Amino acid sequence: MTPERFRALWSSLLPIGLDRRTGGYFRYGWSDADLACREWFAEEAADRGMDVAADGNGNLIAWWGSGGPAVLTGSHFDSVPNGGAYDGPLGIVSAFLAVDLLRERGAAPAGRIGIAAFAEEEGARFGVACLGSRLMTGALAPERALALRDGDGVSLGDALTKAGADPARLGPSLPAVDAYVELHVEQGRLLSTGEHTAPVGVASAIWPHGRWRLDLTGEGNHAGTTRMADRCDPMLTLSYAILAANKEARLRGAHATVGRVEVTPNATNAIPPSVSAWLDARAAQAETLDGLVEAVAAKVTERAGRDGTSVAVTAESVSPAVEFDGGLRDRVAALLRAPILPTGAGHDAGVLSAHVPTAMLFVRNPTGVSHAPAERATDADCAAGVTALADVLQDLACR
Amino acid sequence: MTPERFRALWSSLLPIGLDRRTGGYFRYGWSDADLACREWFAEEAADRGMDVAADGNGNLIAWWGSGGPAVLTGSHFDSVPNGGAYDGPLGIVSAFLAVDLLRERGAAPAGRIGIAAFAEEEGARFGVACLGSRLMTGALAPERALALRDGDGVSLGDALTKAGADPARLGPSLPAVDAYVELHVEQGRLLSTGEHTAPVGVASAIWPHGRWRLDLTGEGNHAGTTRMADRCDPMLTLSYAILAANKEARLRGAHATVGRVEVTPNATNAIPPSVSAWLDARAAQAETLDGLVEAVAAKVTERAGRDGTSVAVTAESVSPAVEFDGGLRDRVAALLRAPILPTGAGHDAGVLSAHVPTAMLFVRNPTGVSHAPAERATDADCAAGVTALADVLQDLACR
Repeated sequence: MTPERFRALWSSLLPIGLDRRTGGYFRYGWSDADLACREWFAEEAADRGMDVAADGNGNLIAWWGSGGPAVLTGSHFDSVPNGGAYDGPLGIVSAFLAVDLLRERGAAPAGRIGIAAFAEEEGARFGVACLGSRLMTGALAPERALALRDGDGVSLGDALTKAGADPARLGPSLPAVDAYVELHVEQGRLLSTGEHTAPVGVASAIWPHGRWRLDLTGEGNHAGTTRMADRCDPMLTLSYAILAANKEARLRGAHATVGRVEVTPNATNAIPPSVSAWLDARAAQAETLDGLVEAVAAKVTERAGRDGTSVAVTAESVSPAVEFDGGLRDRVAALLRAPILPTGAGHDAGVLSAHVPTAMLFVRNPTGVSHAPAERATDADCAAGVTALADVLQDLACR
Repeated sequence: MTPERFRALWSSLLPIGLDRRTGGYFRYGWSDADLACREWFAEEAADRGMDVAADGNGNLIAWWGSGGPAVLTGSHFDSVPNGGAYDGPLGIVSAFLAVDLLRERGAAPAGRIGIAAFAEEEGARFGVACLGSRLMTGALAPERALALRDGDGVSLGDALTKAGADPARLGPSLPAVDAYVELHVEQGRLLSTGEHTAPVGVASAIWPHGRWRLDLTGEGNHAGTTRMADRCDPMLTLSYAILAANKEARLRGAHATVGRVEVTPNATNAIPPSVSAWLDARAAQAETLDGLVEAVAAKVTERAGRDGTSVAVTAESVSPAVEFDGGLRDRVAALLRAPILPTGAGHDAGVLSAHVPTAMLFVRNPTGVSHAPAERATDADCAAGVTALADVLQDLACR
């Protein structure tokens, strides 16, 4: 694969959902931008004579071949708010180009190769990460999914109906496949520095991680007239929580972030009665993660006592560690002569790995930045990623 | 005035703009709720045979009598988001009831008594507090006002046009009056505790106060994969700023609040590239206020250096101290045998005091809470406030 051929197909997807002012992407599940990405997917599949199957959960699979053993590849189109171009779409674009490369090599699947586009991986609209793959594998019950609402109060059922889908079809839909291979842009700098330096790497594991909601309640009051000693200001407790989470994560070599905050009523001249914040926490070991969250909760509760506020900590989603299939990982790494590295990010591959031998390829990201417009990969590295994905699919799926 | 008569008129205004879920009020300038309040005002004026004059700035004045010396009373209808019922409307309802009381006493104005309803005192929609009175007195230029936009991007001109007003009429409109007297719910507990205990008090001064915007810029990145040491997270700088402002205010006996925060993109799994926050700061002395804001800015700038972020501090509005007219203050306090107390809150009375001898009456608030649903005054204290206002108007304006 050449960088130019990669760029040609990549460019056709780039305008969809782009905010030209910020350079970031807004591709929430079942938004207009997401639906345009799905049309792009259908056209690329049709160009290659591949049939597209839509399950009841918003996931698409384009199939090459029929019957027999099957191997799945793919990723997702949707983004975080103002996200980067590569997180997700790179795996889908690379999969179509890998099919092209296999055909040029005269290779064909012994049974089938499928290219998947999973729905709402980031959870930016309905708050549940890997929504499509969790529904596909049965990890999330349809009843629970149907109760989800987006920030505007639109239910998942209504979003599906508006997009021409039938909410009654939500539920397990994983096809019988022998392996799943997901190519993804790297979201750190391990491939750019040190022992792992290479254009493409293979994933060893996904850190256990989760989202915890902090609801802090105090007493709303006038900012100008309320004596400092009379205040019960939850913004103080929140500020302490953010700094405590950072410190506790550093002490443990873990990751903790508060990137989302909601203040009520969010007025300059009012002490807020309540503030909510979301803690994103991740660590290499489950015990480390548990210890981190417990320490933050304990420190915030103690501080709330001093601020005259109260705190409730709710786990919204917690994903255990994923150790990718060792045999498949070693086979892929040996084939590609690629380094093996862990990641702190969740992926559809992590969800599927509980059901299917799964491998992940990472393409080097020189900035290390992800979930932001500065997310990058060179065309040369992306082309190397396509070649690597084609090699893996040929090894696993072709005659 | 009896508590029952107060409650009867008060109840007629209470449903307008009430959020029954929270018990708070949403009465932004020129919103449907605000326009309904203006209709209520016109009906109450008509019931009393008072003519309503609307200036070009959204302010209303209902006049009793004609010619000769004039005294103005009144307040505002608009609220902060989810505000209390009393802040503003109490002064207008009390003014109509004071007129009723004067008539029952057989008193009549030597010239005129006007009841004013000032527009957008809280600044909750267009960001400038005392918008109506500032335009009326010439403290705010019409060009600057016309450039204001609300959170939805609607300009003040469009809001005026939609409400049936002509934006070309914006500008100075203060009628010739000998005095302005504003009755307002207390926004603290000085009248409930200690040396000032009484149902009604008289204002000595308004603290100098202002709003400063903090723009904190870092580097957006993935919450899961970015090492703690590689982060430039403006949320940390913000948290430090909120705690530093609180501490510096306590050290100085001043008030500092961060009640409004905007996080971009505000996603759980993204380190935000930028965060903005608004600092509301007030102090008894201008030097104390200046010292407070300088200390906060210096500490936040130092912390930003450690966080790898940058900080810009912009003064959005700063109001100097207001010392109410000493002669009028002492005359009113002696007449009512009421205590004299300062306040940290801005008011239309503060704006008018630069042009007209001005006095303020405060009605006791047992919770001390304001700008929140728990804002309260007993019907008995409100009735005492009406009687006090009638006494003052009779003393200043009647034959």
